[in-house]
Amino acid sequence: MRLAFFGDVVGRAGRRALEDHLPRLKLELSLDFVVVNAENAAGGFGITEAIADDIFQNGADCITLGNHSWDQRDALTYITREDRLLRPCNYPPAVEAPGKGANLFTLPDGRRVAVISVLGRLFMDSLDDPFQAVERELNNVPLGMVADAVLVDVHAEATSEKMAMGHFCDGRASFVVGTHTHIPTADAQILPGGTAYQTDAGMCGDYDSVIGMKKEGSVKRFSTRLPTERMGPAEGPATACGVMVETDDKTGLAVRIDPIRVGGRLKETLPD
Amino acid sequence: MRLAFFGDVVGRAGRRALEDHLPRLKLELSLDFVVVNAENAAGGFGITEAIADDIFQNGADCITLGNHSWDQRDALTYITREDRLLRPCNYPPAVEAPGKGANLFTLPDGRRVAVISVLGRLFMDSLDDPFQAVERELNNVPLGMVADAVLVDVHAEATSEKMAMGHFCDGRASFVVGTHTHIPTADAQILPGGTAYQTDAGMCGDYDSVIGMKKEGSVKRFSTRLPTERMGPAEGPATACGVMVETDDKTGLAVRIDPIRVGGRLKETLPD
Amino acid sequence: MRLAFFGDVVGRAGRRALEDHLPRLKLELSLDFVVVNAENAAGGFGITEAIADDIFQNGADCITLGNHSWDQRDALTYITREDRLLRPCNYPPAVEAPGKGANLFTLPDGRRVAVISVLGRLFMDSLDDPFQAVERELNNVPLGMVADAVLVDVHAEATSEKMAMGHFCDGRASFVVGTHTHIPTADAQILPGGTAYQTDAGMCGDYDSVIGMKKEGSVKRFSTRLPTERMGPAEGPATACGVMVETDDKTGLAVRIDPIRVGGRLKETLPD
Amino acid sequence: MRLAFFGDVVGRAGRRALEDHLPRLKLELSLDFVVVNAENAAGGFGITEAIADDIFQNGADCITLGNHSWDQRDALTYITREDRLLRPCNYPPAVEAPGKGANLFTLPDGRRVAVISVLGRLFMDSLDDPFQAVERELNNVPLGMVADAVLVDVHAEATSEKMAMGHFCDGRASFVVGTHTHIPTADAQILPGGTAYQTDAGMCGDYDSVIGMKKEGSVKRFSTRLPTERMGPAEGPATACGVMVETDDKTGLAVRIDPIRVGGRLKETLPD
Ligand SMILES: [Fe+2]
Ligand SMILES: [Fe+2]
Ligand SMILES: [Fe+2]
Ligand SMILES: [Fe+2]
Ligand SMILES: [Fe+2]
Ligand SMILES: [Fe+2]
Ligand SMILES: [Fe+2]
Ligand SMILES: [Fe+2]
Repeated sequence: MRLAFFGDVVGRAGRRALEDHLPRLKLELSLDFVVVNAENAAGGFGITEAIADDIFQNGADCITLGNHSWDQRDALTYITREDRLLRPCNYPPAVEAPGKGANLFTLPDGRRVAVISVLGRLFMDSLDDPFQAVERELNNVPLGMVADAVLVDVHAEATSEKMAMGHFCDGRASFVVGTHTHIPTADAQILPGGTAYQTDAGMCGDYDSVIGMKKEGSVKRFSTRLPTERMGPAEGPATACGVMVETDDKTGLAVRIDPIRVGGRLKETLPD
Repeated sequence: MRLAFFGDVVGRAGRRALEDHLPRLKLELSLDFVVVNAENAAGGFGITEAIADDIFQNGADCITLGNHSWDQRDALTYITREDRLLRPCNYPPAVEAPGKGANLFTLPDGRRVAVISVLGRLFMDSLDDPFQAVERELNNVPLGMVADAVLVDVHAEATSEKMAMGHFCDGRASFVVGTHTHIPTADAQILPGGTAYQTDAGMCGDYDSVIGMKKEGSVKRFSTRLPTERMGPAEGPATACGVMVETDDKTGLAVRIDPIRVGGRLKETLPD
Repeated sequence: MRLAFFGDVVGRAGRRALEDHLPRLKLELSLDFVVVNAENAAGGFGITEAIADDIFQNGADCITLGNHSWDQRDALTYITREDRLLRPCNYPPAVEAPGKGANLFTLPDGRRVAVISVLGRLFMDSLDDPFQAVERELNNVPLGMVADAVLVDVHAEATSEKMAMGHFCDGRASFVVGTHTHIPTADAQILPGGTAYQTDAGMCGDYDSVIGMKKEGSVKRFSTRLPTERMGPAEGPATACGVMVETDDKTGLAVRIDPIRVGGRLKETLPD
Repeated sequence: MRLAFFGDVVGRAGRRALEDHLPRLKLELSLDFVVVNAENAAGGFGITEAIADDIFQNGADCITLGNHSWDQRDALTYITREDRLLRPCNYPPAVEAPGKGANLFTLPDGRRVAVISVLGRLFMDSLDDPFQAVERELNNVPLGMVADAVLVDVHAEATSEKMAMGHFCDGRASFVVGTHTHIPTADAQILPGGTAYQTDAGMCGDYDSVIGMKKEGSVKRFSTRLPTERMGPAEGPATACGVMVETDDKTGLAVRIDPIRVGGRLKETLPD
């Protein structure tokens, strides 16, 4: 099976990059299932129903969120009606957080893909323990038995926590991919147990920016420590950053991982 | 001029990767000047004189440090005798921190390269303001006048702070490169003002690990929150991760940036 | 019932303050049950069996720990043999953390006191969600039914998280008291639902120090950002800091809360 | 000389507490100079000119701010016209931050009081190094020579950083007092060098709250991790929390320190 994951869509520029490239890539790369992290799609902060609709239209089969899940408050209700939209799975179990943190999707040909979203703890305003939460979710969808493929989006700041999650899932997930830092990492690999891994997928956004937001205000804040106007997303040509993973349908494990970077300022990289 | 920078050397495996590849790469790529961040070279924690000697022997012209600068206490005295070893420049100005945070090197052919080391502030045990410190150091070595090339090693956790530093230096440095996360980023670019930039160079270390350290203990700590034995560096085959930048000798600005990843588990990438 | 709680015992000076004052206070104040946080009793870092024995000898009926629980590794085994020693209750449920995070004690006269230890999350290397963990523990010991008194030690940095925990437990615990900052707060009150509350009990230690540790090295570290020798506890005359709470045996709720500060540099304060 | 300092005024309830008690206390305690931290006076977030005017009217001679200085943006311009309003002194020196971080006030009888505001670095969105900044400001107003009294407001989260600042200033300031945690500490003392010290002055606000804000929303956020409505200040009867210090006019050092807590839920405490 061929999965692709695209990282944090930032604002209009990021949405346009998806629109420009995803439909074509889905065809050309014969992608069976596409997941997009879109926690910054609405002006950098959260997501709306209209924006999610567009992203689904452009080829996403599932959208994941992160620490910005609820920046647009109507996402709290929209998510209860939309099973393809996932927020992190590690809300305290006793809390009735709206929506789901994981879901099992059935492809037209009957194969099933599980997607799990989880929020990290290091250097973040944290939810519940991400490792126990992922353990619980993985146990719901044994790879090669309940699910033909399992994808985990680790929305986290620290590379250490993300790599630890990769190894924690190794052999039990098809693909563990990080999001949140908005910068793609160049460490795509298949871990010893067969799980494809990349520390961060990178963003779909303008890379002449500070993690997708206009650079002038951000640099000024960092260097003067004084408030500036509310920052908006940078609007230059954006790069769509993602990762393609191919799994063995017998085991659900990965046989191939390739980065995707197309458009904008970054050097184009596509699976051969 | 051709500069190369290699990221955090982690333990023996990382040192061996440098030893295996740097001498050859220096020749094959006609590198004029090589900087290596070696804050984790001694068993993952700091650096010793003997280890620094080996790294210089293998082709480093300058070694930078970071938050682990003083993990081996004798570095506090060694650095006062070794001008090619730099610790971050943003110690409080009134403090007589040992060693230097920046230095200007003269090549055999008379060209001069300035290297500046700076420690970030976000999510770190911080030093003084990194932006004002870099401003001060940049003013000491105007590009194209005092220095033919200026390289800034931003040792920082957050991608936002590193990108902001890139833009802050844009047009005034030849190359701004991040370190500390131990994972190479795939965002090499030349910023609009002519400064080459990559958010993190990545480590020289074993990528079947948690940021270079043995994975078993680290995963256990993350998932149980209980103490484990003191963690050591992973010892499998390591990847040497770096970046090559070519500058225009008239302006000191970058004309080319190419990642280097050789050995170990990551896909080999070399300048054409 | 009369409960007393004493905050983080720091090193030898803190232990001596307990030894000097606790036996006498237990008699004079007719204390039924005494809890002592002793996470820093062994040279500032953790606890040993010998030290715990002394503290029990001096009148403690229960000892709580915190983020320094395992600084002395033998505590990991000692705690499995000693039911009166508690570590935080919010380890991930699936983890078999040694020892207990809560316990129900029976007094000679048959009354029962529940003690719950929990670690905060804000600005700390966090465990699992403290609120859900306390919810679970409180449900095990309904006040006035299973337990005649319930005491919660919130080992946390942020005043906001501690106050929120106070209100979260209001009406369900007899006494919620904070630890970890090593400075007593002057906000003792009975919350509207009947729970006695104080944000921090303060430490048993020398207040001519930096939170109990020698001041010279600490000030030097803060002002120079350079490493200093390993810091030890300050050794001047120490203050025993605690809080006394009286409960109504019918409801288990608090009818009185009074700070205790005796010895050392702080102004003496004792219940009338 | 008799100085008093009142901690973070939170919203209308906090302002009313000042209004109810400060004019009377200033007379009864023969206060020569009163400083009020009012960073949360405007609905919990920042300060406005109209609110500052009221606080000056009620007897404040100087107002200090903190991390919330600019929450109301017009404070950025108001502060340039009002020398009695201070923001933290540790903005990067090269930055032209509006207003002042320290000022020297002359009393009607000719005595001079220096007030210094500084923002901590631990667990905060930090400014420049607080220790070097305070060093610089203290050097401008040698105690007993240029200034008859020197007061330092350390707006910081961590008790360790605040105590370290106390010792750092010991013998060079009359009074070092912490703010920001909104909870008064019970550790008033005169340090060995003659500087009066209290880790936190506490807030002027309603203590049936979470650090001055309505408790319901705050507890819900902590326990569910879900967004709630924007939180406003609690509106019950507030306590005015402060500290009185008496100095020796010959040396500028402290001879007496007494907490002040009046009104609201906390036990009343006044200098004899
Ligand atoms: Fe994001
Ligand atoms: Fe995020
Ligand atoms: Fe490193
Ligand atoms: Fe580092
Ligand atoms: Fe402690
Ligand atoms: Fe602690
Ligand atoms: Fe405040
Ligand atoms: Fe504050």
